[in-house]
Amino acid sequence: MADLKVVVAGAGGRMGAANIRAVAALGGLSLHGAIAKLHAAVDRPGSPAIGLDAGLFAGIEELGVRITDDIDAALVGADAIIDFTAPGASVALSQKAAALGMVHIIGTTGCSEQDDAAIAASAQAGARIVKSGNFSMGMVVLANLVEKAAAALADYDIEILEMHHNKKVDAPSGTALLLGEAAAKGRDIALKDHAVTVRDGHTGPREAGTIGFATLRGGNVIGDHMVILAGPSERIELNHRAQDRTIYANGAARAALWAASQPPGLYSMTDVLGLND
Amino acid sequence: MADLKVVVAGAGGRMGAANIRAVAALGGLSLHGAIAKLHAAVDRPGSPAIGLDAGLFAGIEELGVRITDDIDAALVGADAIIDFTAPGASVALSQKAAALGMVHIIGTTGCSEQDDAAIAASAQAGARIVKSGNFSMGMVVLANLVEKAAAALADYDIEILEMHHNKKVDAPSGTALLLGEAAAKGRDIALKDHAVTVRDGHTGPREAGTIGFATLRGGNVIGDHMVILAGPSERIELNHRAQDRTIYANGAARAALWAASQPPGLYSMTDVLGLND
Amino acid sequence: MADLKVVVAGAGGRMGAANIRAVAALGGLSLHGAIAKLHAAVDRPGSPAIGLDAGLFAGIEELGVRITDDIDAALVGADAIIDFTAPGASVALSQKAAALGMVHIIGTTGCSEQDDAAIAASAQAGARIVKSGNFSMGMVVLANLVEKAAAALADYDIEILEMHHNKKVDAPSGTALLLGEAAAKGRDIALKDHAVTVRDGHTGPREAGTIGFATLRGGNVIGDHMVILAGPSERIELNHRAQDRTIYANGAARAALWAASQPPGLYSMTDVLGLND
Amino acid sequence: MADLKVVVAGAGGRMGAANIRAVAALGGLSLHGAIAKLHAAVDRPGSPAIGLDAGLFAGIEELGVRITDDIDAALVGADAIIDFTAPGASVALSQKAAALGMVHIIGTTGCSEQDDAAIAASAQAGARIVKSGNFSMGMVVLANLVEKAAAALADYDIEILEMHHNKKVDAPSGTALLLGEAAAKGRDIALKDHAVTVRDGHTGPREAGTIGFATLRGGNVIGDHMVILAGPSERIELNHRAQDRTIYANGAARAALWAASQPPGLYSMTDVLGLND
Repeated sequence: MADLKVVVAGAGGRMGAANIRAVAALGGLSLHGAIAKLHAAVDRPGSPAIGLDAGLFAGIEELGVRITDDIDAALVGADAIIDFTAPGASVALSQKAAALGMVHIIGTTGCSEQDDAAIAASAQAGARIVKSGNFSMGMVVLANLVEKAAAALADYDIEILEMHHNKKVDAPSGTALLLGEAAAKGRDIALKDHAVTVRDGHTGPREAGTIGFATLRGGNVIGDHMVILAGPSERIELNHRAQDRTIYANGAARAALWAASQPPGLYSMTDVLGLND
Repeated sequence: MADLKVVVAGAGGRMGAANIRAVAALGGLSLHGAIAKLHAAVDRPGSPAIGLDAGLFAGIEELGVRITDDIDAALVGADAIIDFTAPGASVALSQKAAALGMVHIIGTTGCSEQDDAAIAASAQAGARIVKSGNFSMGMVVLANLVEKAAAALADYDIEILEMHHNKKVDAPSGTALLLGEAAAKGRDIALKDHAVTVRDGHTGPREAGTIGFATLRGGNVIGDHMVILAGPSERIELNHRAQDRTIYANGAARAALWAASQPPGLYSMTDVLGLND
Repeated sequence: MADLKVVVAGAGGRMGAANIRAVAALGGLSLHGAIAKLHAAVDRPGSPAIGLDAGLFAGIEELGVRITDDIDAALVGADAIIDFTAPGASVALSQKAAALGMVHIIGTTGCSEQDDAAIAASAQAGARIVKSGNFSMGMVVLANLVEKAAAALADYDIEILEMHHNKKVDAPSGTALLLGEAAAKGRDIALKDHAVTVRDGHTGPREAGTIGFATLRGGNVIGDHMVILAGPSERIELNHRAQDRTIYANGAARAALWAASQPPGLYSMTDVLGLND
Repeated sequence: MADLKVVVAGAGGRMGAANIRAVAALGGLSLHGAIAKLHAAVDRPGSPAIGLDAGLFAGIEELGVRITDDIDAALVGADAIIDFTAPGASVALSQKAAALGMVHIIGTTGCSEQDDAAIAASAQAGARIVKSGNFSMGMVVLANLVEKAAAALADYDIEILEMHHNKKVDAPSGTALLLGEAAAKGRDIALKDHAVTVRDGHTGPREAGTIGFATLRGGNVIGDHMVILAGPSERIELNHRAQDRTIYANGAARAALWAASQPPGLYSMTDVLGLND
């Protein structure tokens, strides 16, 4: 059983700290024939985290790995990079990953088409890249199931419900919309033409083929989502409940373990989870 | 164990048929020291149901009781009337119930203040009346629990969710609003000043003290309601799920059994269910 | 838009009556390019239902179709047979369906291997057969989703919960076990080696890789099922809620509409629902 | 608006740290006319926590309050003690609270009858004591609602479901049993004579009047509980969902704020939550 030596990029940020904790937590768990091990933690020059022990910085036990600003030194002997940083940094890291034949897990958001093209080129040049907009394994699976159920139960009414904490300032949640997109894809329709986000007063009967959204807010709920397919005398409910925000870091660490045994290429979380077969 | 001899008024209507079935279904069940038995079924003169067997009319087995238009004959030897009819008819029936010392269960809606005063006078004159806007035992209990929880958890966020079939033309449901009123009563506030029924786009954070409503529509769902109280790191959810529309008739039949052992007076379903102690 | 002329076999039984109602209810609904229409209703010679109007017998409006015991006359001009009867009758019907190139929907249970072989031969000889052990569309979809989720989230804990009415005499329900089989298939394990159906007192920690079952009983609940996949800080819940027992007849009627546009062959509900792509 | 100056006892333990965090978190929240403020944090002589800043020790920001082993100095100028320690320590603290007319919140478990009598005597001698076996406000409210619902819906079937993480070694959970006791109290029966904790294989129909328990285990679920009351065609579900273990410390801090405006006496969480009216 080989160790997978992981470098966490952007280690000085909140998501970096979560990634450090997730790699450490997976330390004892063998997945896909390997065990994750924190090899290095990197942050930008000038970050106040430079020099601190990565574990203590992340609020867990001392890991004996000091956060550094020397990315090239950090990559020596490493197998994988977990990177939730910024588009420019992710493109540059993908090129290093390609040169070294490494795994590169990219959770960075806001990439332009050019950034995405450069990342794809790195995958062709030898990197094993997993890039996703959502690394929660449960949510990736749920979206896939929603697409299948929406296609199979083609005339059942689809409703999407979400609950989040009382500080959230927009509705529906981005994840609820993502689930709506999955349902719309299963139906081969455009969500924007079929979404119903308000029901108040005299609404008339539900229009067939629409996708309804409902929003709950309260307490410090992390995020619950439910997709309902309602037909004659039966309902399917497909729920996801998040307990805390570690689910993204956890999915990224698992993606790294999976990618280590794949040929170079550009993968998504649906590949990691075997949902494209 | 005495039989409670029940007369169903308005027997030729949908709710009357449901009341006939509910009394028949309670036939074998002893509650509050009595067993319900259909004694007579009455409808207005000219109703096409006159002369039919009440059981066959209601879609169950033959009961040997023909639907009649002679109310006074029907009341001879009877103990209780179940009446979901019209205000004028209910007032008149309450006066007969008073004269005979009978139980009178009134599910009639749309009563004016004068009607209510006349019904109260009948109760003072000897009738044992249970009048309620909602005879579902589960829902009456739930509304009572919601009021208590809203008072006890005074700064928890309250959200009310309902799901109904896709033919329903208004939102939120009347029962959701009733639950909202119960929550508002527990908080000693007016619902209309604190209800939030729309969340769409940039909403800003949830305003403390509001009561949120969310609406789902789909399939032929009879009616599910949920009241959520969300506070720091915990949530209470108080749900009611209705399987079919027999719950109102069933509650009325049980109210009749309860009222038979009470002194004359005007009661509500919260009395029947012992929720005012 | 062509009518699909449907013959209900076993019309004098409870499931036959449900099938009559389902075909009638789909009468106005175009699915897969056709509209279902009751063409004939057949029962065994000597059945007390012979000669009655199929609609009135089934508790709905008069349909102008009398229940007959002459199967060959009933099949003249018909397109499809819906058949929840007995193995011998189903085999014989499949042979008639083959000779006439008809659709044959088989919900009959208890078929031997020879029966199944004979039915498969009829499919090869020209019948369009859909045979399934469960015609609830929602449940067929759910079982398929459970299998996929169990495979994708390979180390998440799987738990299966069901609730049924208080008259049910066994636990877990057959459908809960079917869902357990689907989960086990997704994991490539045998359910019987991994099922845990009792937890009481000192249980020790949950053994990884097991599939837990929990049972609730109460009221007249038709049947709710939930499959939970619980991993680090997230849960997926896949639920099915049945409101009444029409869901099997409804799925059978829809299968008939689907099969009408398929080439002869032997199909399952996963084919009807497009889940095998 | 007065500050409520709170002393946390047993500050060096896990529950002590949680209490420090809860008091700090309530710092900005006015409840019952006061704002909580950490005044001192105390642990036993020799504890490794002595001398550390209470906030840093508890994993939050520096609070400027060092953990001390001098209880009498700590109490000077204080208004309230929050104490989840040991029986002997709690009795001694209650006597100091009595002498100083302080609020004393006791979450200590394992008290003997003599301990309880001594605590009651302190309450008579001037302390404002709130003692409870469960300081989760939501759970205290839920148990109260369960008792009321079980009494009101006297012949509905009661089922109790719980889900906890996969490390839990016993079933049903203590809280599920506590909810069962609340239901049994509402029915005026003994739980031990009516609890059903196993259903497997041929069970026969559900016995009327029993209270069923079902157990789910998986992931790192903190603790979800559901009490179902199922009757004819309707169900009530009363749920509690815990997100993390801060709910006990949070309830204790709120109890302190409530008790500050009460006369001396011995109170429970049902008093704090106004559930005994």
